[in-house]
Amino acid sequence: MARVKTDERIVVAMTELLRRQGYAATGIKQVVDAAGAPIGSIYHHFSGGKRDVAAAALRQSGAAYGELVGMLLAPYDDIADGIEAAFVAAADTIAESGWLNMCPVATVAGEVADTEPALRAVAAEVMDAWVDQGTALYRTHGLPEPEARTLILAVIASLEGAFILARTQRSTAPILAAGHAMGGYARALTADPENSGAPA
Amino acid sequence: MARVKTDERIVVAMTELLRRQGYAATGIKQVVDAAGAPIGSIYHHFSGGKRDVAAAALRQSGAAYGELVGMLLAPYDDIADGIEAAFVAAADTIAESGWLNMCPVATVAGEVADTEPALRAVAAEVMDAWVDQGTALYRTHGLPEPEARTLILAVIASLEGAFILARTQRSTAPILAAGHAMGGYARALTADPENSGAPA
Repeated sequence: MARVKTDERIVVAMTELLRRQGYAATGIKQVVDAAGAPIGSIYHHFSGGKRDVAAAALRQSGAAYGELVGMLLAPYDDIADGIEAAFVAAADTIAESGWLNMCPVATVAGEVADTEPALRAVAAEVMDAWVDQGTALYRTHGLPEPEARTLILAVIASLEGAFILARTQRSTAPILAAGHAMGGYARALTADPENSGAPA
Repeated sequence: MARVKTDERIVVAMTELLRRQGYAATGIKQVVDAAGAPIGSIYHHFSGGKRDVAAAALRQSGAAYGELVGMLLAPYDDIADGIEAAFVAAADTIAESGWLNMCPVATVAGEVADTEPALRAVAAEVMDAWVDQGTALYRTHGLPEPEARTLILAVIASLEGAFILARTQRSTAPILAAGHAMGGYARALTADPENSGAPA
């Protein structure tokens, strides 16, 4: 089996630590230990140290997460059906995993938005990409640009918030409720886009 | 002017630090310095130290936040109008404050849900109280219990997620989009509760 490169192992270890315990609680020594890498290799691959590794982890898991959500939404002809199915799948996954943090991008962004401008900017870039991808997807289903953008923003916001409630309450109810609400909104929107579109 | 009691000053200082930088980044020394309190006073008032102070801060800001949301939603006869107005007010407030973390309960819960079981339980208790309050409010507007509970869960999830997106993107767009979507869902629900109610 080919060896995974050191820099990749470091990013994977950081992603898992961010997922479980967040940014401030994660020390660079813990990352290299988890990656089985010498401490010097961090600064060889990531000159900015912990902050650069975290930025790479957010970019990588953000891209993976964007692809996953796209894959979940895409197979449905009906936008509302696709949203409800994606939230149901997310609820099943989080419960089966023992309440795994499904999206370290949002929890780390929530933790560091006021203290780590560089990481905030990376998380914003990741979220902008999700919004652009979702807008493009919903446009292919016939929604005008502003309605498509409003819908994907609301879907992402409610999914991220529902993940936090679900992990905190150890319950899938918040995810199922959010999916049901967003599906209901999407159904009203596609039935009558004139009347239910973007905020004024 | 009466002096604010030491334990109250400690909780206020912790709340502000949790809001700005989260739990792991906040040291107990920083809390007592911000509170202008001697270090020994922490263990006099909070035998469990930092964790106990954070629990008190989450309970206190959770109760305040629950009251605020109740006050924003209550004056509207129409549930959907009330939701949209509450999200617009939240968007205005967060932008005017320079992207203040509006809800440390959710960001701290997202940060510590897998590492601090006691704080997770406190955050769950706070969220359960929000859900019960919102369910009671929507029942007074005529929604059956399951529909009322689903709606308030979805509203809280989308508001919390939208706060994180807004702080990250430095934009009110996610909050306005989430409010518009939740208002649209509530409008469909109140027009036809049989057809748009709780998830099966």
